[in-house]
Amino acid sequence: MQYRVKFEPDNVDIVVDEGANLMEAAIAAGVHINANCGGASTCGTCNVLIKHGQVESFKTSKVTDADYRKGVRQSCQSKIVSDLVVEVPPQSRLETAVLALEKQTMTATGQTLATGWRFAPPIEKRFLELTPPSMEDNVSDLNRLLRCIEKSCNLTNVEVDFVVVKKLAAVVRAGNWKVTATFLDDDGLRRLINVESGDTRSANYSLAFDIGTTAVRAQLLDLSRGSVLAQAIDYNGQISYGADVISRIAQCRQAGGLEKLQKAVVETLNKLIKEMTKQSGVGIDNINHVVVAANTVMVHLLLGLNPQNLRLSPYVPTLSNPPLVKGRELGINVAEHVYLYAVPSVASYVGGDIVAGILGSGIHQRQKVTLYIDIGTNGEIVVGNHDWMVTSAASAGPTFEGGGIKCGMLATIGAIEDFELKAKNGEPKLSVIGEVKAKGICGSGIINLTAAMLRAGLVSQDGKFNTDVPTPRIRQSEDGYEYLLVPAKDSATGKDIIFTEIDMTNLIRAKAALYAGYQTLVKSVGSRMESIDEVVIAGTFGSRLNIENAITIGLLPDMPREKFIFIGNGSLLGARLISFSTDLLRESHRVAAMMTNLELSESANFMTNYTAAMFLPHTDAGLFPSVNVGGSR
Amino acid sequence: MQYRVKFEPDNVDIVVDEGANLMEAAIAAGVHINANCGGASTCGTCNVLIKHGQVESFKTSKVTDADYRKGVRQSCQSKIVSDLVVEVPPQSRLETAVLALEKQTMTATGQTLATGWRFAPPIEKRFLELTPPSMEDNVSDLNRLLRCIEKSCNLTNVEVDFVVVKKLAAVVRAGNWKVTATFLDDDGLRRLINVESGDTRSANYSLAFDIGTTAVRAQLLDLSRGSVLAQAIDYNGQISYGADVISRIAQCRQAGGLEKLQKAVVETLNKLIKEMTKQSGVGIDNINHVVVAANTVMVHLLLGLNPQNLRLSPYVPTLSNPPLVKGRELGINVAEHVYLYAVPSVASYVGGDIVAGILGSGIHQRQKVTLYIDIGTNGEIVVGNHDWMVTSAASAGPTFEGGGIKCGMLATIGAIEDFELKAKNGEPKLSVIGEVKAKGICGSGIINLTAAMLRAGLVSQDGKFNTDVPTPRIRQSEDGYEYLLVPAKDSATGKDIIFTEIDMTNLIRAKAALYAGYQTLVKSVGSRMESIDEVVIAGTFGSRLNIENAITIGLLPDMPREKFIFIGNGSLLGARLISFSTDLLRESHRVAAMMTNLELSESANFMTNYTAAMFLPHTDAGLFPSVNVGGSR
Repeated sequence: MQYRVKFEPDNVDIVVDEGANLMEAAIAAGVHINANCGGASTCGTCNVLIKHGQVESFKTSKVTDADYRKGVRQSCQSKIVSDLVVEVPPQSRLETAVLALEKQTMTATGQTLATGWRFAPPIEKRFLELTPPSMEDNVSDLNRLLRCIEKSCNLTNVEVDFVVVKKLAAVVRAGNWKVTATFLDDDGLRRLINVESGDTRSANYSLAFDIGTTAVRAQLLDLSRGSVLAQAIDYNGQISYGADVISRIAQCRQAGGLEKLQKAVVETLNKLIKEMTKQSGVGIDNINHVVVAANTVMVHLLLGLNPQNLRLSPYVPTLSNPPLVKGRELGINVAEHVYLYAVPSVASYVGGDIVAGILGSGIHQRQKVTLYIDIGTNGEIVVGNHDWMVTSAASAGPTFEGGGIKCGMLATIGAIEDFELKAKNGEPKLSVIGEVKAKGICGSGIINLTAAMLRAGLVSQDGKFNTDVPTPRIRQSEDGYEYLLVPAKDSATGKDIIFTEIDMTNLIRAKAALYAGYQTLVKSVGSRMESIDEVVIAGTFGSRLNIENAITIGLLPDMPREKFIFIGNGSLLGARLISFSTDLLRESHRVAAMMTNLELSESANFMTNYTAAMFLPHTDAGLFPSVNVGGSR
Repeated sequence: MQYRVKFEPDNVDIVVDEGANLMEAAIAAGVHINANCGGASTCGTCNVLIKHGQVESFKTSKVTDADYRKGVRQSCQSKIVSDLVVEVPPQSRLETAVLALEKQTMTATGQTLATGWRFAPPIEKRFLELTPPSMEDNVSDLNRLLRCIEKSCNLTNVEVDFVVVKKLAAVVRAGNWKVTATFLDDDGLRRLINVESGDTRSANYSLAFDIGTTAVRAQLLDLSRGSVLAQAIDYNGQISYGADVISRIAQCRQAGGLEKLQKAVVETLNKLIKEMTKQSGVGIDNINHVVVAANTVMVHLLLGLNPQNLRLSPYVPTLSNPPLVKGRELGINVAEHVYLYAVPSVASYVGGDIVAGILGSGIHQRQKVTLYIDIGTNGEIVVGNHDWMVTSAASAGPTFEGGGIKCGMLATIGAIEDFELKAKNGEPKLSVIGEVKAKGICGSGIINLTAAMLRAGLVSQDGKFNTDVPTPRIRQSEDGYEYLLVPAKDSATGKDIIFTEIDMTNLIRAKAALYAGYQTLVKSVGSRMESIDEVVIAGTFGSRLNIENAITIGLLPDMPREKFIFIGNGSLLGARLISFSTDLLRESHRVAAMMTNLELSESANFMTNYTAAMFLPHTDAGLFPSVNVGGSR
């Protein structure tokens, strides 16, 4: 027996077998439903409304009785047993508007902190005029080409790809013995990857990707001029299989799971390639290189490598320096001759995205000591300079992306991102992204909210709500105290938007993990926080961060504000610079090799620092001299 | 409208569209019909008997009126217009029995003339015991492996294939951190092509192929012991598309022609691989290398390169040194990690088969000057020693393989291969391969026949039959004089088997081309025939050659008989030795590069020599002092 399932508001139909899982049906239909836990039934982000028809579904605590009566079901827990019309509500949908917004602000030429690198892309085109063959000189086409390369480019040790051989005879004759050869610098060796008729030197393009767990950012680069021709952004297609790397890894334990995830991210890349070639008018065949910066799990999944061992002690990746691989071999829609270079990683949770960010921000070139922070689900931290670097990943959890927070959400349309308290009565003034009715609160909103409440004395330094303040906004619920941000009548969801004491505890844990991470790393090299010369903040979340508020709650160290530098997406920046410079590509290996990884979970020092940081801003007030919140009560 | 065609005696059916070509239907059905001219209607080797049903067919001179009335048609000229039962007669079929015969005699260990090479295959397996990872040492699996390789094998510059990476995590853990790594020596660079759990050093095999225009010969080699485990031989599947390289090249001018030929030879290789793995019990996955020796056209076709420019002046191949290519990429049924090495060639008509033969016979190692001859459709000739070599291909035509001879055939069951004249009355004593009724005469048979007739005075030195001898065997036909070898009543075909004066002229042309080739080459290096220290005769045809008779007709130079050495299949011998020795593999490049190719067709000297050699044995009797046939008349 088969049934037809219609998904609204996308208006997409699919026919499935009786008993099929509703979430899997949505994935098969190309309809995204949030699934932060990857289908384990524990997150409740995949709730949908069954408008017509029947499903067999377990009722879990993630669906209220009232919602259940209306027809709300967890899609991951639902079996299809009739024709259906299913509405995917706003909170279960991806919001693409915010990505469009980010794209407008994605740094095209970028604030490049790395200096002194030579513009000399790893891909080079050379125009060659061969001597036509004659009876006196009838060596093979390939020998003729190599002879000319040796003579005009002074290159003898050239490795020839078979794809070049396959087209060679036709190409040299069509170009009347004038051709353009494309070389890839392969760790000093010159690899001849393509040959074209005539002079095509001006058509030399490449792709730079930052593959994040949540979103993929891309740029199409002109290697003959060193410019960005197009850029694009989209959610990582893997997001339908779980919001974080842990649920993605768990997915790989199922039969065919790895293949699905690999295909999902490649489909995202192909979508972005299509969009950028359309924007720029660049032909696919003129794209000669792909550079990818991504965390270690994303690199494994892209290459089709099972990431299982990354989450099992002693956390061993399959590789940290990926060998060259053809883009086409992974399913990426580029020409047959194109290789993919993935920026090397340091350890299981410190990936090529961080190495790329270090390169892009030029930390490896300077004597002064920099603290580099990329805050996401994992907060990656680097401390170092041109001589040494230590790095660590602090498991901040998904708090800063709105995860694990009752009304938390990504920084998309409808998210409360700023917060002021008008008066001591606790009445707030909110800023919502997109200036629409609020749907929830995002990471930066939570930080700004907490800082304001702390200053106003609505919350104590140990994260407890101050019930003495005469405001109806602080109230008791079944689960403890909560702060009412937006009443149901004014919200986009028709429900109260609240921030709970439990949410506050989660935030304190997250920021404490990061702060303890800085401290532990700095101490591990025998240094002190005061010796840090500058703080580089990378990442999309970072660019929305209010420094003052972040220091107030103890997320960032209390240092002179001019020491903080925002670089936006450091990973994409690094991928772009590597595309432009063979020197930086080689540096990426040196930098990855020189970074010492510290596993925080194994450090007693870290646990002590972490416990001490479970306070707003910190139990040691001396670390935050410019913050005076204790006295404002 | 569709029709069913049944081919006998194979009893194979195929359903085809109305109007389909009968020869193409046979190819599609996997039924071989000889087609020496490649379907151009000029050779008559594809004649079949239509037992039931109708074809629309042009009647050409290749079908006699009597045969036509019986239902004989040229399959290449026949359109299918009804259901058919078609009998493929013996002379249009491949005869596999002789190949089985040759297989028995294929030199397993071989008379190896090359000496002093080191047994050190280009494929090497190393057993490695890795240190298991720990929290103190959690570098990636790949880095761990490379670190161990550096330490235990002292190898730092290792290129890692992506197929290794894909399986690495599973393999190291399954083997409890004990693994066997397989390296390919890639021109000095070590390429890591495979990794397996545990110690698999003893399972290290490779394949050596000699891909001839007519037949493919193969051996399965044990690289850990340096022995031959199995061997096999089959016709080159391309034979259905034409008997010689020229008709194969012509086939590539048709849409899809190149792809068909590529697929045909790969199917032959796969058939041989299947047969040899079955014989030896070696698993496909334990085969780590493929070495191919073949003429330049065969290499182009195997690699899927259009050989068009090989037959157009100035005869430029696409390549002479094929780069490494994965066997799987060509469709060869080997594991994903296996590379194919094709022995480099010298010129369009002097291929890797000759280079392999030179290597195998060790000419490049000795000071004494050798004349190397490989007689086939092309007679390839090399003169030289360790310092210098000149080479040429003489277009002998298909005579020595029975082509262009009225009752000519390959040296298979039923072929007359030896001939004596009992008495001056011209009555012969024949030897037939397989001791069956004769079907025709093969190349060596023709040489022995001619030498005997010459000695008996039945033929003059200019190739004319002596009609004064009182024998009914010399008689006149429409086309001139002919010699009756076997009357219809005693033959396997039910027809007279004859040898005509025209056949004799063809033989004289063929042997003259070869002899003039030796002379021209020897003279080109300022030497003389007497200065040749030894003559190496390679090839299957060569091994059936009667030296005395070949000198009598002027096919071989008149030199002391002890100077002649037979090496059998030099091409396969060379491919095997290259599989066993990295030194010889490198030598193959040096030898190919050092050989100077002389285009005989461009040499005035050659034409003079050729004309002078159009006599039995030669117009200059002084060149053949030991032959005394003029006086025996």
